[in-house]
Amino acid sequence: MDRRRMMADGIVYFEDIAVGDGFDAGPLTVSREDVIRFAAEFDPQPFHLSDEAAAQTHFRSLAASGWHTTALFMKMFVAAMQKEPGRQAASLGAIGVDELRWLRPVRPGDTLRGTNEVIDKKASASRPEMGIVRNRVTIYNQHDEPVLTMIPITMWRTRPA
Amino acid sequence: MDRRRMMADGIVYFEDIAVGDGFDAGPLTVSREDVIRFAAEFDPQPFHLSDEAAAQTHFRSLAASGWHTTALFMKMFVAAMQKEPGRQAASLGAIGVDELRWLRPVRPGDTLRGTNEVIDKKASASRPEMGIVRNRVTIYNQHDEPVLTMIPITMWRTRPA
Repeated sequence: MDRRRMMADGIVYFEDIAVGDGFDAGPLTVSREDVIRFAAEFDPQPFHLSDEAAAQTHFRSLAASGWHTTALFMKMFVAAMQKEPGRQAASLGAIGVDELRWLRPVRPGDTLRGTNEVIDKKASASRPEMGIVRNRVTIYNQHDEPVLTMIPITMWRTRPA
Repeated sequence: MDRRRMMADGIVYFEDIAVGDGFDAGPLTVSREDVIRFAAEFDPQPFHLSDEAAAQTHFRSLAASGWHTTALFMKMFVAAMQKEPGRQAASLGAIGVDELRWLRPVRPGDTLRGTNEVIDKKASASRPEMGIVRNRVTIYNQHDEPVLTMIPITMWRTRPA
């Protein structure tokens, strides 16, 4: 975010967001206990629950649920956004996500970080109070290998007239 | 799944899956405590934590994190798959998801169910031991309103030669 574009009220409206703007989040370390607890509640497939079961599969050892990785993305990005109250004030959440890809397993002990880049923006014809921003998100592990990529489609308030 | 296509070993290989095959999951009721606990850990935006904060936003009342809804999709679908061990045996998980859309808020007390339909399948040229299946998933609430749609891209074992 280029702070020069911010208005005096400090709020980052749709008009203040530019293609190419960047945003970093994390780091966040995933424990073995976290991996198993999430999987036990939401994705109890054997390769997300124990090394022994994962050894029988292409995962080879315990791997986090892909939906755990997306939840951890959100945790990192909300924390980063809450450090910038002006961003949070004008965010209206997400419509959806395109092209989500799990590229590598996330393992217990991995330390994740994320990057966000604005790839395009579009005013809403039908709803002038908001605009749509598409972002390319990449989550990396501690070896700087991408583990997840996706394109969240987010809504932002436009500046009051 | 048309059971007539299943082999004597009971395993649903890539070859046994046909475009148009259907699969249902759920129901699953989401409690207020679940909504707040998930949000507190992964998505602590005010509208996912309290009715009072949500009343200040376009959500109007407490709404589940969109990533909670995707986790609940997985919970329902794994439970449905585990009732059919032959399906689970040949599933190799997902590469990713296209066109994920959150269409309506999920509210405390909502009862969700899901449908899955195979929309296309493709053998892997480079990896003959597996094939790719694209599925259209829709999650509905108790009013039969869709709350989420997406296209998971899943991998399946091919039948051993």
